[in-house]
Amino acid sequence: MAKSAVLQTDMRPRPVAPRNTSRPAKKRPQRRPRDAAATSDRILEAAIAEFAEHGYAGARIDAIAQRADANMRMLYHYFGSKNDLYLRVLEAVFERIRLKEQKLNLKSMAPLPAMVKLFDFTYDHFASNPLFIRILTSENLLDGRHLSRSIRVSSLSSPLLVAMKDVLRRGEADGVFRRGIDPLQLYVSMVAMSYFHISNGPTLSHLFSTNLSAARWRNERRRHAHEMLQAYLTMEPKPVPA
Amino acid sequence: MAKSAVLQTDMRPRPVAPRNTSRPAKKRPQRRPRDAAATSDRILEAAIAEFAEHGYAGARIDAIAQRADANMRMLYHYFGSKNDLYLRVLEAVFERIRLKEQKLNLKSMAPLPAMVKLFDFTYDHFASNPLFIRILTSENLLDGRHLSRSIRVSSLSSPLLVAMKDVLRRGEADGVFRRGIDPLQLYVSMVAMSYFHISNGPTLSHLFSTNLSAARWRNERRRHAHEMLQAYLTMEPKPVPA
Repeated sequence: MAKSAVLQTDMRPRPVAPRNTSRPAKKRPQRRPRDAAATSDRILEAAIAEFAEHGYAGARIDAIAQRADANMRMLYHYFGSKNDLYLRVLEAVFERIRLKEQKLNLKSMAPLPAMVKLFDFTYDHFASNPLFIRILTSENLLDGRHLSRSIRVSSLSSPLLVAMKDVLRRGEADGVFRRGIDPLQLYVSMVAMSYFHISNGPTLSHLFSTNLSAARWRNERRRHAHEMLQAYLTMEPKPVPA
Repeated sequence: MAKSAVLQTDMRPRPVAPRNTSRPAKKRPQRRPRDAAATSDRILEAAIAEFAEHGYAGARIDAIAQRADANMRMLYHYFGSKNDLYLRVLEAVFERIRLKEQKLNLKSMAPLPAMVKLFDFTYDHFASNPLFIRILTSENLLDGRHLSRSIRVSSLSSPLLVAMKDVLRRGEADGVFRRGIDPLQLYVSMVAMSYFHISNGPTLSHLFSTNLSAARWRNERRRHAHEMLQAYLTMEPKPVPA
């Protein structure tokens, strides 16, 4: 079978990744780089699902290997320890949101549409990645102690604040935006408005006898958040209702 | 020793609380009702701390008994199973916030100050009850399946929306508030603005190299949230900066 041939090729004895690095071991030039990359991707996706479901302590490496249709030696070869694999998962989920943010190209847009676009991207990203929410939530229950080992995620995140600062500065200069808005406060609010009704949806839905994951409620949520964001950002006079 | 005397008094054989009720067993008239209430309170506080620290699965009943300086039989007598004790914890933390909300007496205040008061209460309550946040967060990772057994928390929560509706209606009538605000959307935003920077503070602090639990950042957070809330609620014209 093709698959077991790949397994055998990949499983020749090689140095195992050092235990305290967060990056997968550098792969040597080999005959099947595409297969190796595919296996490594499958393991990463499986690890995201397993850690999202069971948290760091509850996740099992053998369950990840099984989900990925890989074997344990391969997993340890690519990702090192459970600890390292988990950190790689954290970095991967943040990389995804950060790299997509950079492609929004906020610079080319007028200030208000740029901020609405950033909000919509954030809102949609969390709405369509509930596993990301679970992973982030669990990691915070561990006081973020694994993520704190990653320098990479901080350096990945700073361009976002730079981009927001640029939009805010342009909005101030145009007289469209309120003055003195702090980009981090604003971003935390944008994420809060995109994340909290999902992360705490089960209890909120029960407490207030309303299904917060219904499409209608979610659409209303976006509209409400848009109104809030726009009201906060802009200084434009609004009509007083009769 | 006084304490062991109490223990002996309380430990006479009695019917154990039924396993599938969420309420502590009704205490019969007895000689030391104050001691019994104190013990029961100590167990509840210990359970809040233990479940907040370790989540439902990780919490240990013997650790709760030890924290409370009570014994296991006493604990089972008052609270039934681990399941029941956990549900009692969930109900207790929600009771506390709901009962305090009811004392805010929003009815007696002008609409905008009333909403700011509700926000400040919510903001302060979460800021000073990090255990509540941890318990809520863990329960949501379990899809709220324990809380969903409690009818009590829903009936406790509905008066809040009624009170908010009254404030919104008065604000609309006075021409101070935007029309058509949904009280639940607004409340979810208020909690999101009070909760998310704490629940996700560890990862946010690392990502953006800023300590989100510093007093200065927290004060800025409140100010930012006030501005956002006020901008959203009010339709008053605001000056356009030069």
